[in-house]
Amino acid sequence: MKFFYNRSLLSENKIQKTADSLLPYIKHLQLVADKAGYADVESTINLPTDKKMLQEIIAMAKQKATPKLKYFIDIAIGASDLGAKAWYDAFWGFYDLLQPERFPKTIFLETPDEELLTKTIRLLTSLKSKEEFLINAVSKSGGTPETVVNLEVILDALKKRFGDVNDRLIISAGTDTPMFKLAKEKKLPLLEMVKNVGGRYSVFSSQGLLAAAVTGLDMQALCQGAVAMRQKCLDPDLLKNPAALSASIIFQHYQSGKNISDTFIFLPQLETLGKWYRQLMGESVGKEYDLAGKKVRQGITPTISIGSTDLHSVGQLYLGGPRNRISTFVWGENKKYEATIPQEMEFPVLDAVAGKSTHTFIRAVIEGVKIAYQKQQLPYMEVVLDTVSEYSIGEFMQFKMIEMMYLGKLMNVNAFDQPNVELYKKETRRILKST
Amino acid sequence: MKFFYNRSLLSENKIQKTADSLLPYIKHLQLVADKAGYADVESTINLPTDKKMLQEIIAMAKQKATPKLKYFIDIAIGASDLGAKAWYDAFWGFYDLLQPERFPKTIFLETPDEELLTKTIRLLTSLKSKEEFLINAVSKSGGTPETVVNLEVILDALKKRFGDVNDRLIISAGTDTPMFKLAKEKKLPLLEMVKNVGGRYSVFSSQGLLAAAVTGLDMQALCQGAVAMRQKCLDPDLLKNPAALSASIIFQHYQSGKNISDTFIFLPQLETLGKWYRQLMGESVGKEYDLAGKKVRQGITPTISIGSTDLHSVGQLYLGGPRNRISTFVWGENKKYEATIPQEMEFPVLDAVAGKSTHTFIRAVIEGVKIAYQKQQLPYMEVVLDTVSEYSIGEFMQFKMIEMMYLGKLMNVNAFDQPNVELYKKETRRILKST
Repeated sequence: MKFFYNRSLLSENKIQKTADSLLPYIKHLQLVADKAGYADVESTINLPTDKKMLQEIIAMAKQKATPKLKYFIDIAIGASDLGAKAWYDAFWGFYDLLQPERFPKTIFLETPDEELLTKTIRLLTSLKSKEEFLINAVSKSGGTPETVVNLEVILDALKKRFGDVNDRLIISAGTDTPMFKLAKEKKLPLLEMVKNVGGRYSVFSSQGLLAAAVTGLDMQALCQGAVAMRQKCLDPDLLKNPAALSASIIFQHYQSGKNISDTFIFLPQLETLGKWYRQLMGESVGKEYDLAGKKVRQGITPTISIGSTDLHSVGQLYLGGPRNRISTFVWGENKKYEATIPQEMEFPVLDAVAGKSTHTFIRAVIEGVKIAYQKQQLPYMEVVLDTVSEYSIGEFMQFKMIEMMYLGKLMNVNAFDQPNVELYKKETRRILKST
Repeated sequence: MKFFYNRSLLSENKIQKTADSLLPYIKHLQLVADKAGYADVESTINLPTDKKMLQEIIAMAKQKATPKLKYFIDIAIGASDLGAKAWYDAFWGFYDLLQPERFPKTIFLETPDEELLTKTIRLLTSLKSKEEFLINAVSKSGGTPETVVNLEVILDALKKRFGDVNDRLIISAGTDTPMFKLAKEKKLPLLEMVKNVGGRYSVFSSQGLLAAAVTGLDMQALCQGAVAMRQKCLDPDLLKNPAALSASIIFQHYQSGKNISDTFIFLPQLETLGKWYRQLMGESVGKEYDLAGKKVRQGITPTISIGSTDLHSVGQLYLGGPRNRISTFVWGENKKYEATIPQEMEFPVLDAVAGKSTHTFIRAVIEGVKIAYQKQQLPYMEVVLDTVSEYSIGEFMQFKMIEMMYLGKLMNVNAFDQPNVELYKKETRRILKST
């Protein structure tokens, strides 16, 4: 992964000055990394090196995901499934319609939807044996309402069809939660979620990695990419540290009124990866109170755009509208595949593309967009993936998680909590009790 | 469809005053409707009553979509496919993984992606006969680069496998474009795109309706919903006119600094419908110059959130972060389906949901969110669909297209052009020629 910031429209001096203020925190993160383990809120950076956890997950996947497995059902929501879904969609999900014979396929049950539940049940109960499905219910808090609702509806139908299905259910939850305890009593297959790692920083734990392993992704490469990136993002030589640079640039533009951060990804299969980042930024720095307890109501609205598609959607707004966003272009060749436009075109309305590869075409679009942004004085950064691989996506996610810790520090907010969501949850519980 | 605005945090007086300024334009739209036809830029409102066009599309669908059809390939991008995709995803696409035996399935080819193209070609060339696929290439301008690239790559592979496939290709394009003329010379099946109806207002033309008809949606109901809504949205009794009210409320909040408009949809199958609206708003009111030619760089950033999923993603930001957005909650029961949580729960960690339907659960979440927004003084409107049906989605789209014309009028910009996208296109063409 390469990171460029020469078009951020900020001077290197100014960026360096902001980044300098991160040096004590970088030192703290280095200590967290050195001592390993999970004592600190930043312990997420130690997950990809946790050999014991990785082995446990590999063993679980090996035991449960036999060649008979057709459907892996990931019951979770928000932080508890976006990482797994980002990986699945990047390598499988975006192409599932085109590969009807490829298995196992993953079905994500997030918000309870009656049609989705009905059709999932029809599909699963039509299977020949229970070895053809495997359920993973993931809830850090051990009681996420959506996850409980979906799980109960699905289990009820599966038990009626197959009898006892406990051996086809894996529970991933925090160790001190009611769900974990119940699962333990029932002797269900269990994976622990690390207490000090918040949901949105938990992709390199059982949350993301079990789903990756079950569907045949290279877990080791995902983790290796993250480990390599951790080193870069803890570098005190700030001008070589992509996380410190990116956080400093977003922060400076935020201070001068740019309160939207657009991640413009020119790889359509990475849209869910974008949504994962949207969640990371939305929850981490959108805060009512700062670290001193002062009411600040601050935050940056994260948006995800997909190139070249969204040039035909929000391109007009971005190029012509208000200068209230800092953009990060994410691109890279998918080197495993290629497609070429024939020399003799059926519709020769665009001679310049004849005989060229789709890579060349998309590169020209990206370069065109960059020049247009420059001419309109719109700031941007660039993240270039080596290719679409487990390793490079592992790099990207680690880069973004450390960037977010730095951004929280610069904005003087707690990047690890989400107190305001309790506001609607409390009301919902009250309404549910009274209906 | 019902529309509520009692929590917009604006006085009825203030809303009425803004809406009043729309009265001359409403009169103009009434004239456009009265004379029918396509003489004006607002002629989109006459599409759903165009019986001749509808019959042409139905005839084309009937002729080409035989019971053998398995894959409908929609090659288009942005305005030329988002409407069709919104409909497909709402009724079929969101559930495709769960219904492997349901056909025809639609494959959307938007941005050229080498892996997607490679896998689409593998799938199509493995089919037994060319009657099992049907391609519709849609380009209002008759030369959208992405559409040309995808079409050429696909056709090249199909011709090698099946020989002449001209009878399995339908071209939809503006009549005075190079692609239309070439298709006519080749005697290809052709559908005209109306000159005065811009892409993003064209869903009720061949663009959206052919795809709907081919996949078995009720085109008549889609159009009937739109026709009924047109009447409501041309009502000079402004407090009964949802489009005038919604545009006035968005505009007033925009003037007081709320430059983000969030459409928060509590029906996950309508995410693409949200993206359709995002495109409509992004291109229509994100403008560098106003109608007087004055440089204004104005616009509202449209965002789409999906409930309840995104409460676990951007909910913290929305509830705790800056008050810079006006929200529209969209919800409704999907009355064709239901799912119930068992009375005896396997994991009784949330007693209040036992024995209840998922409808009841989601309603409680929505009500909880509304109360939380009220307590945090966050303004919102509500759109309640009667159910997820062709009729109600037809209503919604007509409502939003007329709302956007009104919003353009209030913001004093041209809601029908997108001049700034030319900035990157020009550079891309230059780069393509030189590589």
